[in-house]
Amino acid sequence: MPLMTSWVESANSPETDFPLNNLPYGSFLSDEGETCCGVAIGDMILNVTTLEADGLIGIDGEEEVFFLGDWSDFMALGAPVWAAFRSELMALLGADCEDPQALVDYLVPQVGTQMLMPFHVSEYTDFYAGKNHAVNVGTMFRGPENALPPNWLSIPIGYNGRASSVVVDGTDVRRPWGQLKGPDDTLPRFEPCKRFDFELEMGAIVGTPSDGPVTVEQADDMIFGYVLLNDWSARDIQAWEYQPLGPFQAKATATTISPWIVPKAALEPFRTSTPERERELLPYLQEPRPMLYDIALEVGLAPEGKDETIITRTNYSVMYYSSAQQLTHHSTSGCPMNTGDLLGSGTISGTTKDSRGALLEIAWGGQEPITLDTGETRSFLEDGDRLTLRGHARGDGYRIGFGTCAGTVLPAAKDPFASSL
Amino acid sequence: MPLMTSWVESANSPETDFPLNNLPYGSFLSDEGETCCGVAIGDMILNVTTLEADGLIGIDGEEEVFFLGDWSDFMALGAPVWAAFRSELMALLGADCEDPQALVDYLVPQVGTQMLMPFHVSEYTDFYAGKNHAVNVGTMFRGPENALPPNWLSIPIGYNGRASSVVVDGTDVRRPWGQLKGPDDTLPRFEPCKRFDFELEMGAIVGTPSDGPVTVEQADDMIFGYVLLNDWSARDIQAWEYQPLGPFQAKATATTISPWIVPKAALEPFRTSTPERERELLPYLQEPRPMLYDIALEVGLAPEGKDETIITRTNYSVMYYSSAQQLTHHSTSGCPMNTGDLLGSGTISGTTKDSRGALLEIAWGGQEPITLDTGETRSFLEDGDRLTLRGHARGDGYRIGFGTCAGTVLPAAKDPFASSL
Repeated sequence: MPLMTSWVESANSPETDFPLNNLPYGSFLSDEGETCCGVAIGDMILNVTTLEADGLIGIDGEEEVFFLGDWSDFMALGAPVWAAFRSELMALLGADCEDPQALVDYLVPQVGTQMLMPFHVSEYTDFYAGKNHAVNVGTMFRGPENALPPNWLSIPIGYNGRASSVVVDGTDVRRPWGQLKGPDDTLPRFEPCKRFDFELEMGAIVGTPSDGPVTVEQADDMIFGYVLLNDWSARDIQAWEYQPLGPFQAKATATTISPWIVPKAALEPFRTSTPERERELLPYLQEPRPMLYDIALEVGLAPEGKDETIITRTNYSVMYYSSAQQLTHHSTSGCPMNTGDLLGSGTISGTTKDSRGALLEIAWGGQEPITLDTGETRSFLEDGDRLTLRGHARGDGYRIGFGTCAGTVLPAAKDPFASSL
Repeated sequence: MPLMTSWVESANSPETDFPLNNLPYGSFLSDEGETCCGVAIGDMILNVTTLEADGLIGIDGEEEVFFLGDWSDFMALGAPVWAAFRSELMALLGADCEDPQALVDYLVPQVGTQMLMPFHVSEYTDFYAGKNHAVNVGTMFRGPENALPPNWLSIPIGYNGRASSVVVDGTDVRRPWGQLKGPDDTLPRFEPCKRFDFELEMGAIVGTPSDGPVTVEQADDMIFGYVLLNDWSARDIQAWEYQPLGPFQAKATATTISPWIVPKAALEPFRTSTPERERELLPYLQEPRPMLYDIALEVGLAPEGKDETIITRTNYSVMYYSSAQQLTHHSTSGCPMNTGDLLGSGTISGTTKDSRGALLEIAWGGQEPITLDTGETRSFLEDGDRLTLRGHARGDGYRIGFGTCAGTVLPAAKDPFASSL
C-alpha cells in the first residue's frame, strides 16, 4: 500500500509519523483547558471531541462518545465501529475531501500541545515474551544453565502489573525508594533505588471485552491498537523481592506509554509471523496467521542538558509470542478481559548488545557499562537522564509512528518516612 | 463495648452477625430491579439508596452518593464522612430513634434478596502474610530447608491479582482449564484443572487514595473496611506457571468476597497486634499500634446435595503482617493507590492441621486426604462442592459478622477451543 495523500500538507511527507495511512488516537488538553479526543495527521491534531459536538462526525446510534476526551467508550464499541469511523476520518482528511476549509478550525498544532492519557487503563499485564531478553536476564539472575525457565517455550509468561502507575509520554518519573539487599548484606535497607532501568516494549490495548476463553483469532479481533511502552524497572528492588511471587514494587513506580494509539488497521500491511518454534505450541496458542508486526524501534538516552545517544535499535518482530497469543493465554482460566486492559509485550531485545531493550542487558548488570556519545558511561539510569522510545513501521513512501514515549528521571525524594520515625 | 440495641428486634440477638454495633455496607437488587446500597441490621437490609432519594439520609454537600447502588463514591469521601454517616445510621436504627415507623418501609428482608458487588474493584493485590501458610506451602513447593523465602521476614510479599475476576458471595465458580505438567511429564497439556482449591483470607478495601509513600498510620486511615475473601486457586496450573514471575492464570478464575463490608469502626474493639518478630522490621513497616483484628474464621465444605463439614477453624490474628503494613509497603515505590483497591491478606492458617486455610495444606498436597462428616474424602475440591467462609469478631453479648463468602464449583466447560482447532 502506498502513501495515501491528505489535504493536510505535512501528512504527505515520507518522514512524518502520521500520514493518512496512520490516523492514531490520542487525548490532549485544548486551549480552553478541556480534555479532548484527537487524531494525529501530519504535524496537526484533529479535534474529534469538538467535531462530534458540532455534528461533523459521529457514531451511528451513539451520543457523546468523545465528550469526555477519552477513547475508552469508542474502544468498547468493537471492530465494525472502529472500521466505519476510520473510513469517515479518511474521507474527511483525504486529498479528495470536498470542503477542507470547514475542517481547518478543528486542527491544532502538535507542537506545544499537552498530550494526556488516551484511555482509562482497566488493568495492566506485563509479559515476558522476548526470548533474547529472557535468556539474558535469566543468565544474570539464575546462571546460563537455568536461563530459560522450563515453561518459557510453552507459556507466554505474564504477571499482573499496576494500572494506576501507567502514565503518558512526557511524564517525569521519580526514582523510587524500596527495600534493597546486596548479595553480601545480612539484612535489607530502605533506600533509593540504585539500579533504575527502562524496558523497551510494545503495548496492546484491549478494545472489546470477553468473559471466557478466546481463540487467538478472537483475541486479535479484540485488540484496538498498539502503543510504545516503557516499563520502568528498579532492578535492585526486583532482585530482593521477586521470589517467589514475582515483581511487585520494582515495577510499580511508573509505566510510560506513547500518546498515540496506532489502530490495528494502520499496521495491517506490516504483519509478520512469530519465529520458528523449538517446541511446538499447544494447539490453543498456535497462530492462524501472522500477528506480530515489523516495527523498527529505538531508544535514546540524553543526560541532563546534553545530547541524546541512541543506545539500542531493534524490531518488534523478534518476539516469540504475539499480543493475540498472550491475550488468549490470559483468558484460558476464564479471566474476564475488559475494555482498556493493557498488555505489555515484554522487553524487546535483539541478539546483539546494541539491540537489547534494557540497560540491565546492555550493560550486563553493571559489568559492561556503555559509553554515550557525550563520553559519559552508564550502567543504569542516572538522575536527570531523559529516556525516549521511538518506533515506526515503514511502508512504500510513508511510515507509521507512535510519537515518542519519553520520561526524565527525577532524583529520589528525601526519605518519605523521615517525619514519621 | 456491650451490645447496642436497635428497634429492629432481630438486631438485638447475641447470635446475629448484624447488631447495631456492626452496620456493614452492601449492595443488593431491589424488588424493582434496581441496584441499591444497603446496610445490614439484624435479618434486614436498610435501603440507603431510596432513603437518600427521599431525603431521609445524606452526605453534607454531596448529591446522589448512593444513586448507583455502589459504595465507591462514599468510600472516596474519607474517614470524617464515614464517621458522620455511621453516626447518622446509628441514630436512625438505634433503640432511641424517635420515629421508627417512618423507616419500616425502607427495610428489606435479607432472606431471598440477591446481593451484588458492593464496590468497583479498582485493582486487586494478594499478599502472602500468613507465616504458617508460607512455611507449609514453601515446604511442599521447595522443601523444608527453603520453605520461607529469605525476604519473607522483611517484606509483606504480595503480587498483583486480577480485579476483573472478583465476584460476590454466592457466585458459582467454574473449574478452569489451563496448562498442566506433572513432574513426570515431558510436555504440558491443556486440560481442566485437577487441583482446584480455596484460600481463606480477609480483604481490606482502600477508601481514600494516595499518590506516594504512606506511613502505616496513614495506611490504616485509608482503609474503609474489611470483607471475607476466598482466593480460588488452581494448584496444578500454579505449579507449572509460577516461576519466575509469580501466579497468573492459577488465580484468575475467581476471587469471592463476602457481601458485607464491615467498617473499620465496627472492628475497633477487636484490634490486636501482629506477633513478635524474629527479625526486626525496617522502621517504615513497624506498627504504631495494633492493626490486626481478633476475628474467628471457619470454612465449611458441602459436597453436592450433602451436609457441610467444617474443615478448618482459625483466626485472622495469626497473621504476620497487617493490611495497613501491606498497604504501606505497596506505596513505597510511589505506586498510586486508589479508591476500591482490594488487598487480600494472604491465606490464614493456624499451626494445626484443622486450622489451615487451604486444602493444599490441610490435605498436604494430596498426600493426606481429609475425611468429611459424610464419609467422603477430599484432597482438592470436586465438582458440586459448595465452599463457605464465615467469620466474626465476638464482643460482650454480640458479634460482628460479614455474611457468608460462598461458591459452588461447577464442572469444567467442554474444551473451550474445540471448535477452533
